[in-house]
Amino acid sequence: MPAESLVVADLAEQDLLDRIFPHLPVGSRTLVPPGDDAAVVLAPDGRYVVTCDVLVEDVHFRRRWSTGEDVGRRAAVQNLADVAAMGARPVALVVGLVVPGATAVAWVEGLARGLGDACRPLDVGVVGGDLSSGPVVVVSVTAHGDLEGRAPVRRSGARVGDVVAHAGRRGWSAAGLDLLTAGRGDVAPELTAAYRAPEAPLAAGPAAALGGATAMLDVSDGLLRDAARLARASGVTLDLDAPLQAFAQDAAVLAGAADALGGADLERWLLTGGEDHGLLATFPPDAPLPEPFRRVGSVSRRSDHPVLVAGAPPRVVATGWDHFGA
Amino acid sequence: MPAESLVVADLAEQDLLDRIFPHLPVGSRTLVPPGDDAAVVLAPDGRYVVTCDVLVEDVHFRRRWSTGEDVGRRAAVQNLADVAAMGARPVALVVGLVVPGATAVAWVEGLARGLGDACRPLDVGVVGGDLSSGPVVVVSVTAHGDLEGRAPVRRSGARVGDVVAHAGRRGWSAAGLDLLTAGRGDVAPELTAAYRAPEAPLAAGPAAALGGATAMLDVSDGLLRDAARLARASGVTLDLDAPLQAFAQDAAVLAGAADALGGADLERWLLTGGEDHGLLATFPPDAPLPEPFRRVGSVSRRSDHPVLVAGAPPRVVATGWDHFGA
Repeated sequence: MPAESLVVADLAEQDLLDRIFPHLPVGSRTLVPPGDDAAVVLAPDGRYVVTCDVLVEDVHFRRRWSTGEDVGRRAAVQNLADVAAMGARPVALVVGLVVPGATAVAWVEGLARGLGDACRPLDVGVVGGDLSSGPVVVVSVTAHGDLEGRAPVRRSGARVGDVVAHAGRRGWSAAGLDLLTAGRGDVAPELTAAYRAPEAPLAAGPAAALGGATAMLDVSDGLLRDAARLARASGVTLDLDAPLQAFAQDAAVLAGAADALGGADLERWLLTGGEDHGLLATFPPDAPLPEPFRRVGSVSRRSDHPVLVAGAPPRVVATGWDHFGA
Repeated sequence: MPAESLVVADLAEQDLLDRIFPHLPVGSRTLVPPGDDAAVVLAPDGRYVVTCDVLVEDVHFRRRWSTGEDVGRRAAVQNLADVAAMGARPVALVVGLVVPGATAVAWVEGLARGLGDACRPLDVGVVGGDLSSGPVVVVSVTAHGDLEGRAPVRRSGARVGDVVAHAGRRGWSAAGLDLLTAGRGDVAPELTAAYRAPEAPLAAGPAAALGGATAMLDVSDGLLRDAARLARASGVTLDLDAPLQAFAQDAAVLAGAADALGGADLERWLLTGGEDHGLLATFPPDAPLPEPFRRVGSVSRRSDHPVLVAGAPPRVVATGWDHFGA
């Protein structure tokens, strides 16, 4: 049978695992690697950070738009971003993977390659996992990180007078998805690539912690929605600057896509687009912002709205993705 | 709308989470509980054990045979058993959960209750998770444990002359499934309950480590298959005693079910039945076996077969569950 037509159901489970493992780094913190009942990972700090995110086919991605590499990379990055958002350094992943028997083996190998490629440069080990058949692809990743002696940066520490800052991209993934949906992915390959596999500013998490960040979170569901979460947890209002100015560099990248789509709403992408996995943090007013953070607003006393944009309630609807309607 | 007819799609994601969280214990080792980008868990030992297992609807369970509580309890126990099989004490879980929008909210609340009920008595915290829609229920659990200063008990340490010992049930889950499949679940409710939600001897894992176990694993795929894994990892042969004698107590429980099914093969249940999550371990020949381990064989020099039963190659086929055929 030609290699490209081999599907998962053609292999025994162990044979599939034997094709997956070579793509996955073990990580230098891993004392007992995969292959036993459980892995053992070093936690010299005496604590570990842990978080879990699930990707489901036809909910979070479509196989006709995303390669296995894309999905593997995205599954890793969105979890590593949650670790970074606590101010921690990512150390290890475990992966629960469900694939239909009719899935091409090459697609699954690609997924493993994408996971490995996202992890290897950071010395993050893929230390365990499980594999099952099922009706659609599901990738459930649990990520672990090391606080390296620092206090975790939570959502609840923002103080009135703090500077609001952002690191990473805004609106790229949402614009990329809109282009793909309209069949215009050709217009801006950098945006569709950002939708398929985000690039998160992972090193900015520990840098923010070292730089005195008072609160931080990963922007996964859109700026307005995630800013409101930070604001509510901290009991403050985040007063964001006008987005076309605050995110001028992103706006410049997005402008062509907006034109190609007949004048799409740039501000909507910037304010409500999800899945870019930038970091939103607050810093004391006198603290120099660590790279690559940029000032995007300030923290004010709690008002009727958790988030203001240029001093006013947001004109775009502040919903992000909600799985269960309502 | 009456509460019993409420389905997941009727609720916003946060409303569903608000119904799940009250059932889940936080755990006394949890420094930062769920609600932030990630949790922070204490690891005073400077290491953590981590493992992942996935349950998929219509692959691992059927909703017409298992309540939400059953599935939640099973998802927890099978992962906690993997932690125990390293000789570690379970500390924390994270849960990636996929549910169709048409799932009854009461079923999901039951699942959370089952998870919580399995974790609370052990002071295991459910420290994080993710929730998504999807075509079937998927429960991906990652479990963490504490070695409490001990070396991990791996699969590879069995030595010629060691005693082979087993703790927990054998064949109950397989017999329960066969009864349900035949529509005879009424015959032995304790067996069908064992299929729906196994009871694993979790405290036996650390006890084995303290008692000098040289190798150990969780028997999830059947005794022959898992014994062969331990044998291969250790480069030895496991010479198991005749199963009807070695597992006489289990055989007595299973006998009625075998009769009801017209003379089912007791030895097959004992040797190849999976999902009981007992522990198989090897101990030095002079070591007293910690409770509740019972001697079931001995370790001999590696022969042509990784596992012998009463001195001969197994007469039943040594396959367990394989997701992808072949």
